[in-house]
Amino acid sequence: MRVEVVAIGTELLLGQIVDTNSSWIGQQLAAAGLNSHYQTKVGDNPARIQAVLAQALDRSDAVICCGGLGPTQDDLTRDVIADLLGVELELDEAIADRIRLMFTSRGRTMPENNLRQAMVPAGSRIMDQQPGTAPGLVCPVPDGPLGNGEGEYGSAEAGTDRVIYAVPGVPYEMKEMVNGTVIPDLVARSGRPSVIRSRVLRTWGASESGLAETLAGRIEELDELGNPTIAFLASGVEGLKVRMTVSASGESEALDMLDKEEALLRQLIGPIVFAVDDDNMETVVIRALGERGLSLAVAESVTGGYIAGRLCAVPGASKVFRGGVVAYHPEVKTSVLGVAEGPVVTEEAALAMAEGVRQRLGADIGLATTGVAGPDEAEGRPVGTVCYAIAGLDAAGRSTDAVGTLQLPGDRERIRQFSTISILDLLRRRLADTD
Amino acid sequence: MRVEVVAIGTELLLGQIVDTNSSWIGQQLAAAGLNSHYQTKVGDNPARIQAVLAQALDRSDAVICCGGLGPTQDDLTRDVIADLLGVELELDEAIADRIRLMFTSRGRTMPENNLRQAMVPAGSRIMDQQPGTAPGLVCPVPDGPLGNGEGEYGSAEAGTDRVIYAVPGVPYEMKEMVNGTVIPDLVARSGRPSVIRSRVLRTWGASESGLAETLAGRIEELDELGNPTIAFLASGVEGLKVRMTVSASGESEALDMLDKEEALLRQLIGPIVFAVDDDNMETVVIRALGERGLSLAVAESVTGGYIAGRLCAVPGASKVFRGGVVAYHPEVKTSVLGVAEGPVVTEEAALAMAEGVRQRLGADIGLATTGVAGPDEAEGRPVGTVCYAIAGLDAAGRSTDAVGTLQLPGDRERIRQFSTISILDLLRRRLADTD
Repeated sequence: MRVEVVAIGTELLLGQIVDTNSSWIGQQLAAAGLNSHYQTKVGDNPARIQAVLAQALDRSDAVICCGGLGPTQDDLTRDVIADLLGVELELDEAIADRIRLMFTSRGRTMPENNLRQAMVPAGSRIMDQQPGTAPGLVCPVPDGPLGNGEGEYGSAEAGTDRVIYAVPGVPYEMKEMVNGTVIPDLVARSGRPSVIRSRVLRTWGASESGLAETLAGRIEELDELGNPTIAFLASGVEGLKVRMTVSASGESEALDMLDKEEALLRQLIGPIVFAVDDDNMETVVIRALGERGLSLAVAESVTGGYIAGRLCAVPGASKVFRGGVVAYHPEVKTSVLGVAEGPVVTEEAALAMAEGVRQRLGADIGLATTGVAGPDEAEGRPVGTVCYAIAGLDAAGRSTDAVGTLQLPGDRERIRQFSTISILDLLRRRLADTD
Repeated sequence: MRVEVVAIGTELLLGQIVDTNSSWIGQQLAAAGLNSHYQTKVGDNPARIQAVLAQALDRSDAVICCGGLGPTQDDLTRDVIADLLGVELELDEAIADRIRLMFTSRGRTMPENNLRQAMVPAGSRIMDQQPGTAPGLVCPVPDGPLGNGEGEYGSAEAGTDRVIYAVPGVPYEMKEMVNGTVIPDLVARSGRPSVIRSRVLRTWGASESGLAETLAGRIEELDELGNPTIAFLASGVEGLKVRMTVSASGESEALDMLDKEEALLRQLIGPIVFAVDDDNMETVVIRALGERGLSLAVAESVTGGYIAGRLCAVPGASKVFRGGVVAYHPEVKTSVLGVAEGPVVTEEAALAMAEGVRQRLGADIGLATTGVAGPDEAEGRPVGTVCYAIAGLDAAGRSTDAVGTLQLPGDRERIRQFSTISILDLLRRRLADTD
């Protein structure tokens, strides 16, 4: 089963929008074990869109085309598909009614061109998901040559049971339809087990080669089995993701396989796994604090607000996060946090900041960073030096003071981002240790 | 002159990396007035890469291919181009020496496979820019059919003077070569004036349709002239960019044309232009404070560290930025900043926070935010309500107190990001007013 992705829109060629849709679809296809050899971007030009679709059908079994389903004259995907398949566009009354209703329910008159979205190539099926006005289409491709029947595209021996999926370019609409219709339909067509499920273990603190080495034995076993599969996804300052994918005959079998594989992987790399699937470092830290009934305050110098910024991104963070002090100027470290005068890129200063912010803001735990983000060194310490401290008592009354120094590579922004997630991870590990 | 972009790498198809290179190249081509109708992604498979390149040369005059120039067996671009053009790969001694030197100067032995990077299709030219080990290549395409000469690709009537550019997939290496060699070479081949220059005016506070309406007259004039051109680039929470592009016979003529166009546009949209080219909101604010000898402190609730985080991203920010207080919990607003007890999503509370942080941290100006990021409303005020205040005295001793309330759309993250840049823009405008 070979699947191609075609992204339609002149704005993509002009670079006004980065085509993240194709990349995301590529991930879903790979996770479902479907091969994809080409992805093409083409502008809003009917002849060129048709040529690209025809070629894609000539070398692949299925084409997912993204975009060009809106109501304007620029939205050509429906027309081009009908032309290519040699069928008429027909008005789908149910969709037309639905679009009319969306306008009247807002007290507005529907511009006539919105009915373009209800025109569907004859023989197509409408996808069940309809998050927006544009319907997604499943368009079976008739056997034999395409287009005007005069052999302008492809060969008569082209594969049978080919299909075009048309989905909108709006990412959340596209994703709902690809997950809800396209992938299940492709998997069914491929004649493989019908349930494909993935789970992502998010890790912090290992390099890709280090992780590959630790997991080498298991990867070798899985290469022979072929199911589950695991893949690494480098995600920059968000760490490395390990994605497990299983194919199974049913939902519960799939979940069971994922649970077993996760248990196996956690035996090998447990401590560096900080989250699963959609969780991230800040949601995990906020939850761990809440479960233990602990509150947190942060004092930031080198990270300058990034730690607070991430924690406040979590809805409900206010239950455990008191706030913070961005002590950027040394005088602020002294006057607001009570740090002794003298060098500030030291573990002692970090601990004084952490203790100061903990007391000032009335929190159980204080977290602090101070360091050198560059471009110049400071206090004789090189760019990339980051001292941190965690001060306070845990719920059991045990002292959890901890200090340390990181030496991080990269430019100013990278140093600030890396120290932010590194130090949140240190807090996560210490909280886990209190159990 | 039609130019195609081909991005090479299986990781792109799998969605492990988003292909931002093609989008960036698309922007440069558009700015230089060069047409681009297709962009293709293909994996590390020699037959498929060759088929894609052959097709691109059949329908376009030039192909920029990105990636596959590294030292490993997966890096196939050089081999495929040589095959397609029917020429041999030759060792370029200068490049080989350069690569050897890079290893010996670090006291390491060069693995032999690194010499693959010195193998160049006969007749190719090496690009002058060599930021990494992989050299960029300019490969003229001989007239007539490609490949094995048996008509497997293209037609004998294909255009003459066609060319393949091969650049690495590493973004900073690619960008240096595209700007330094590819675009100038394409412009020279297109027979148009030899200097293309762009300038970007960054705006905050206008919608795309509003900006288009304000500039409608000028856009109409320019559509007739054809040079300069202007384009809008929506950049989400970073505002709208207006890019002016001129083509001229020389550098000084180009700069002169850009200056004149910028002056014209500023007459129409001056107040919403906050920065030019690589400047951003935080660099502009930090510079404006420095020029006026003013220091700043921030008190953040709804933005929770984002304002401080952006300001600290500017090297040298410590000269004017004292720091801040993230007063997330209401008690912290009271205990640390001296805000009166009571409702905190009010302009009064914002002003008290701004004045409190100004005094506490010893700054000339205090900036504060308090609001409702959601998901739930608070104090009877709807999600998206953001109150702000600017407190303090300017260098001339005039009071610059100001308060206001924004009502912003979107989810939690969008509300926090939008209020951050909106409030920095308000500070920028007030600083400009003090002149």
